[in-house]
Amino acid sequence: MKKAIKVVTIGGGSSYTPELVEGFIKRYEQCPIRELWLVDIEAGREKLEIVGALAKRMVEKAGLPMKIMLTLDRREALKDADYVTTQMRIGLLPARVKDERIPLSHGMIGQETNGAGGMFKALRTIPVILDIVKDMQKLCPQAWLINFTNPAGMVTEAVLRYTNFKRVIGLCNVPIGMVNGIAKIMNVEPERVRMELSGLNHHVFATDVFIDGKSVLDEVIEKYAHVDPSDALAMKNFNALPFSPAFIRGLHCIPCPYHNYYFFTKEQLAKELEEYQAGHVRAEVVSQVEKELFELYKDPELDVKPKQLEQRGGAHYSDAACNLIASLYSNSGDIQYVNVRNNGAISNLPADSAVEIACVITADGPKPIAVGELKPQINGTIQTIKTFERLVCEAAVTGNRDIAITALNMNPLIPSDELANLVFDELLEAHKEYLPQFTK
Amino acid sequence: MKKAIKVVTIGGGSSYTPELVEGFIKRYEQCPIRELWLVDIEAGREKLEIVGALAKRMVEKAGLPMKIMLTLDRREALKDADYVTTQMRIGLLPARVKDERIPLSHGMIGQETNGAGGMFKALRTIPVILDIVKDMQKLCPQAWLINFTNPAGMVTEAVLRYTNFKRVIGLCNVPIGMVNGIAKIMNVEPERVRMELSGLNHHVFATDVFIDGKSVLDEVIEKYAHVDPSDALAMKNFNALPFSPAFIRGLHCIPCPYHNYYFFTKEQLAKELEEYQAGHVRAEVVSQVEKELFELYKDPELDVKPKQLEQRGGAHYSDAACNLIASLYSNSGDIQYVNVRNNGAISNLPADSAVEIACVITADGPKPIAVGELKPQINGTIQTIKTFERLVCEAAVTGNRDIAITALNMNPLIPSDELANLVFDELLEAHKEYLPQFTK
Amino acid sequence: MKKAIKVVTIGGGSSYTPELVEGFIKRYEQCPIRELWLVDIEAGREKLEIVGALAKRMVEKAGLPMKIMLTLDRREALKDADYVTTQMRIGLLPARVKDERIPLSHGMIGQETNGAGGMFKALRTIPVILDIVKDMQKLCPQAWLINFTNPAGMVTEAVLRYTNFKRVIGLCNVPIGMVNGIAKIMNVEPERVRMELSGLNHHVFATDVFIDGKSVLDEVIEKYAHVDPSDALAMKNFNALPFSPAFIRGLHCIPCPYHNYYFFTKEQLAKELEEYQAGHVRAEVVSQVEKELFELYKDPELDVKPKQLEQRGGAHYSDAACNLIASLYSNSGDIQYVNVRNNGAISNLPADSAVEIACVITADGPKPIAVGELKPQINGTIQTIKTFERLVCEAAVTGNRDIAITALNMNPLIPSDELANLVFDELLEAHKEYLPQFTK
Amino acid sequence: MKKAIKVVTIGGGSSYTPELVEGFIKRYEQCPIRELWLVDIEAGREKLEIVGALAKRMVEKAGLPMKIMLTLDRREALKDADYVTTQMRIGLLPARVKDERIPLSHGMIGQETNGAGGMFKALRTIPVILDIVKDMQKLCPQAWLINFTNPAGMVTEAVLRYTNFKRVIGLCNVPIGMVNGIAKIMNVEPERVRMELSGLNHHVFATDVFIDGKSVLDEVIEKYAHVDPSDALAMKNFNALPFSPAFIRGLHCIPCPYHNYYFFTKEQLAKELEEYQAGHVRAEVVSQVEKELFELYKDPELDVKPKQLEQRGGAHYSDAACNLIASLYSNSGDIQYVNVRNNGAISNLPADSAVEIACVITADGPKPIAVGELKPQINGTIQTIKTFERLVCEAAVTGNRDIAITALNMNPLIPSDELANLVFDELLEAHKEYLPQFTK
Repeated sequence: MKKAIKVVTIGGGSSYTPELVEGFIKRYEQCPIRELWLVDIEAGREKLEIVGALAKRMVEKAGLPMKIMLTLDRREALKDADYVTTQMRIGLLPARVKDERIPLSHGMIGQETNGAGGMFKALRTIPVILDIVKDMQKLCPQAWLINFTNPAGMVTEAVLRYTNFKRVIGLCNVPIGMVNGIAKIMNVEPERVRMELSGLNHHVFATDVFIDGKSVLDEVIEKYAHVDPSDALAMKNFNALPFSPAFIRGLHCIPCPYHNYYFFTKEQLAKELEEYQAGHVRAEVVSQVEKELFELYKDPELDVKPKQLEQRGGAHYSDAACNLIASLYSNSGDIQYVNVRNNGAISNLPADSAVEIACVITADGPKPIAVGELKPQINGTIQTIKTFERLVCEAAVTGNRDIAITALNMNPLIPSDELANLVFDELLEAHKEYLPQFTK
Repeated sequence: MKKAIKVVTIGGGSSYTPELVEGFIKRYEQCPIRELWLVDIEAGREKLEIVGALAKRMVEKAGLPMKIMLTLDRREALKDADYVTTQMRIGLLPARVKDERIPLSHGMIGQETNGAGGMFKALRTIPVILDIVKDMQKLCPQAWLINFTNPAGMVTEAVLRYTNFKRVIGLCNVPIGMVNGIAKIMNVEPERVRMELSGLNHHVFATDVFIDGKSVLDEVIEKYAHVDPSDALAMKNFNALPFSPAFIRGLHCIPCPYHNYYFFTKEQLAKELEEYQAGHVRAEVVSQVEKELFELYKDPELDVKPKQLEQRGGAHYSDAACNLIASLYSNSGDIQYVNVRNNGAISNLPADSAVEIACVITADGPKPIAVGELKPQINGTIQTIKTFERLVCEAAVTGNRDIAITALNMNPLIPSDELANLVFDELLEAHKEYLPQFTK
Repeated sequence: MKKAIKVVTIGGGSSYTPELVEGFIKRYEQCPIRELWLVDIEAGREKLEIVGALAKRMVEKAGLPMKIMLTLDRREALKDADYVTTQMRIGLLPARVKDERIPLSHGMIGQETNGAGGMFKALRTIPVILDIVKDMQKLCPQAWLINFTNPAGMVTEAVLRYTNFKRVIGLCNVPIGMVNGIAKIMNVEPERVRMELSGLNHHVFATDVFIDGKSVLDEVIEKYAHVDPSDALAMKNFNALPFSPAFIRGLHCIPCPYHNYYFFTKEQLAKELEEYQAGHVRAEVVSQVEKELFELYKDPELDVKPKQLEQRGGAHYSDAACNLIASLYSNSGDIQYVNVRNNGAISNLPADSAVEIACVITADGPKPIAVGELKPQINGTIQTIKTFERLVCEAAVTGNRDIAITALNMNPLIPSDELANLVFDELLEAHKEYLPQFTK
Repeated sequence: MKKAIKVVTIGGGSSYTPELVEGFIKRYEQCPIRELWLVDIEAGREKLEIVGALAKRMVEKAGLPMKIMLTLDRREALKDADYVTTQMRIGLLPARVKDERIPLSHGMIGQETNGAGGMFKALRTIPVILDIVKDMQKLCPQAWLINFTNPAGMVTEAVLRYTNFKRVIGLCNVPIGMVNGIAKIMNVEPERVRMELSGLNHHVFATDVFIDGKSVLDEVIEKYAHVDPSDALAMKNFNALPFSPAFIRGLHCIPCPYHNYYFFTKEQLAKELEEYQAGHVRAEVVSQVEKELFELYKDPELDVKPKQLEQRGGAHYSDAACNLIASLYSNSGDIQYVNVRNNGAISNLPADSAVEIACVITADGPKPIAVGELKPQINGTIQTIKTFERLVCEAAVTGNRDIAITALNMNPLIPSDELANLVFDELLEAHKEYLPQFTK
């Protein structure tokens, strides 16, 4: 007899939580969760209560024996958990505003998962995650940690390198978006599409594409080279520019939307600077959306996930988490795209680093399918981002400013050593309350 | 009894030749060259005659039985050669002007060994070198090819990957400059300094530094972090900016001057744009210097290498070549810094790629000393440049525009896919007579 | 609409064919085969007719529209095939008798898949398989070649290394036997057991074991250390001796039955020498069994696979082939244990070598699940057998006796260089009609 | 001003010490040693005094200001040492007798550096060496440890893996013997011969051979294939049998004398069993030789190394150590063959394992010259011995009997798991006073 399942969601007051709850309700047959603990911090108490009340209404409507528990006491929640999800934002949206505006003020890409902004989100988040892992090792050592806090790749890398806790999985909605985009281009149902995925979170390539198991990469490349990607692979939260047919054919694989920052740096920067000057960088837009969502959530008549949530950039994230948990629980053997220890699956990346890759999902965790060697076309850029990730993780753990500056210098979005020093110091000042490792 | 040594210098009409001749004269005891063939093409006939006459005067003054032979017939020269050096410029200095000006006209670094300019120099040079190799395989298969035509790393890569001729060595004066710079910082004679060198031509790091065989890296790092590199490691032909102490400490190794293009992209670009607008990009300055040098060379009284040649950026190049040939000939076992097949010496680069590395020089060629794994700090950027190099070599051999565009996109000095396409097409148009692989 | 499936079985007159036919009948829903071509050579015509008639009766009884075609013309059969299986014995059972008796006559293990006997089976088989591949490349380039001719690992290696045909899969019943043995020890249904499999055909280890997806390796190790393996993991065709508890715990993984040859060399040899002197080495026993089977097959009333076939050593082989074909056809995504190109899945084996490993079966072929690095315990012995395999493949293709002698010297079952030379020459003489590569 | 050099020799009472003293006297110019401390244990006091007195007479005769210090207090000696050599035999020659006789009594090779005997020598020695390293880390952390206690490869492996002390070098006279043998075959002076050396201590191959720096491997192979190796490469202490021409050509590299145990196992065993029955296994012969040597050493007139010492198997060992120390001290940059951390020099062995390889000797230690990938011919057997070495080191440190039994099973000289258990238990019983890690 299998025991009742207990799931803990840290950052439970997030506006994404209703998607998570919907996901668990939808999969109740395959994965009967008995307790869903939503955990938040004092500053998030109000949101937690609003979201928690909605979650309870949703479960009640579904008529399922799933208990929703709300708490500010993380350890109470973690005790004997089976699955722990993390969806937090250290410093909340105001911190994101700084991650975006400060780099832009120095003429470089301002983005919360790439470049200087991404680095600071990692520097704030990693210590908190490592702390959660420490708790889990005591309170629920057999539980799986499913992180979808960005930057998910670096968070996974940090757990793999700086703890001996191995049951961590990083999750992102980008691969799902890529599948959907490819399905659209190829005019088939997404369920029929499978990718060989090679790379890192937000820096991943589809190095092969299958429909019903047959490779159709050549065809996808040709179609992709001539389609406007903004129609197809575009993420909800930013406009991808169309790569040139030559580049796509030369790559002979499909980039992800975040590659726009690296291969359209000039244009992307121009667009962001415009938003910056207009006072509506992405974080500012999101703040407004969030506010509206919580207004909706408050409605005591609402007992389903509202449609508006799908407009949020992170759509599908929570659903992916539910899907993953259900597969882990049921030892389903299906293939999902996650961030895990490489274990040699991509030969030219370190075995002990996190990679984003197609895995068979089993009760013993995701098992990466071997990709072999990255071809030259994509090897360099992936190695560069892995350098960045590893140095950021080291800086996050040690508070070593030299390493942080080196990380920035190695990032293609940072235009010079001098600006690296400048932007680092300003961001550190701006976020210092969340970065004790650098200030003590 | 060892046979008489025959050396062939392709591009023998170069202004650098007097340094080469001086180098051979200086080392005659260790390496008694009996014939030095200077080969050039019809367009270089006049220069060849001027330089050849000077070379003859130099040898005569030295009183050595070394014959100087001038020819426009490469095959005649190559017959039974022992060492072949290549120092050519396909398209001469006017081509370099285009390599520099066209990228700058689109707001990106214009440089003949990096970025778009470096790519086009490679695209023009590689087919010619492969042709020379084909001749050597027939006419002097046991000879060593010592290439110091830029970009020397890519040329070596191309020979290693696209021929089965293995006796190729790429040579550069950057490592010698680094040794000299370090010696100056540490206030010792350069002869006492040895480096562990890791990376690629014009993208190499000193990952350890020894004085009298003892590692002094920590000390060098501290001094380097506080010295103005323009005083120290600066190359004659460009001003290196000082890296921040944080970056140097975080790297914990010594970059090379060309790294300025990558870590001071913004400042370097600004400086070059200024020169561009003033109408004196590097190639234009060099044209003037060359003209003056040849005026000097014509002087029938001149029978030594004139001091002014040392002002030229490529100083020490030819001397390094003489040094290498003397060591190969005498099986000296000394350590030199050259571009050769990696053979696993740097674990995270392909075994069959060219790397720039410290080697023991033997009569069987340079034997790289194992470096082990590149640390994360420098791995990414080196892999990225190796990606660029491999794709450029492929494009040079196949004339595949898609691969060329991909190469540009992967180069950190190219700001966007759109500009990659634009600059490629303009450079192709400008150089088309030397790029039949792309036009037929 | 999927096209009708055409399967070709080379060596169709084998006594195993009824199992194959039964397997296809059983899976008709999942994989509706329309034509099954049984191909044999002139010497096998009688057996082909007997087996073919039985196959037709079986299909008729099942009431399925599956055509059984008999032919001696391989090319006619291969035209437009979808799946090709190979189950041949070059030289038939008399050759196997020699593979077993000649090594034993010199005091070394006589066995048709290991040691000198295994080498000669490979030397005879590989050229024929390469010939079949050549036909397939012309007549059915999109077909899958499923080889279960022993030594299946070396045959796969040879196809991968000496052709550019990549759609080859080597199949063996050892992994299924291991799953069954583990299931018995653990007292669960085999369907619930999954292994992480690491190594080579007939030299493979279960490096992890899962029940319902949860790792139970520690428990299996403890049980295995104390169970008499002859009860459990024993293959039908030989008695495995019990490994010592210390060895099993030190290995911390589960060996395969063929490891007995390597870790009980002394005892295994003693047993075989006894059989040798009694005149009933394995091949002689099998000859008798075969004779009886064909007597049964002739019975015009027989319209199912007779029970007696299950006593044959190769039981489950053909069923495994049917299972694999059905999964390839239906893109099932289940996990099977096959011999395929490593592609980095086992980090310390060459990417382009054949390994035996757990794979996800898709319409694009088996995709190996990454194992990572082999631990020291098993790395050496696996590398040694891979050395043997690679040298044998090279000798089979080139007819180079020096390489063949080196292969034997590197095989742990060969007691000395002198005996290697001796046994090689005798086996070559015995098999010379099938080994033209060595004699011309 | 360089400081005075202090050398410490642990096991200073060894009969080899006069060679060491002679070596230091010979090299005094290059490496002026001021103090040579000979350290031994209480049980070796008498020998220490005899040898010490001889050493003093030798130095006096040479007229050099080199002090010979005798002590039983290891720590007193180690204080501020520059070079520490270790040449000990835990359990003295009686232990070696057991290492040889016990395996032979079970019908397997009895040898103190290979098989079961070699394992037990390692199990006794490694803990003592690790203890010495612990002392060095406190008392002379900058000193180099030059170990020539057998099995030198495993001792080096253990220091590299189980301590963070990196200044360890393992030394063996086998490579020197190979150079001498090759020189004899090729009829040149040994000084002109250089090898590319690939493998492990006592399991090493010359994968290339150079005379005056030019590769002559093909020629050496042909000569070697037809020469009686007992004339040529034979070590003083055992007779190598001639490998077959086919094997040598197939290998296309030169094996070392200890390979006889692996490729003439049958014949070697027969010979040893004969000696065993006659009561004069190697250790027994050596005991007699030692006794005679010490009689000679006592002679107060003797003030040079006696000729008879050269008959001892370990001749050249101590001289090699002197040579190495002199090169380390003088940063000579010559090439020597030593056991050091691989650091990627041999691509298919672990970077952090000990290998025996050609190195450039510098004041920063030996720098291995990259060999690249081991070819299949030799990869398997080298990997197998590395497996054995790693497991033996683990067992030596942990006292884990399971790992020790696994090590024996993986060694090609052990004929079965059952005998592995048997011989292990008998050897453990025989040596138990020196193996507390297994008994507590």
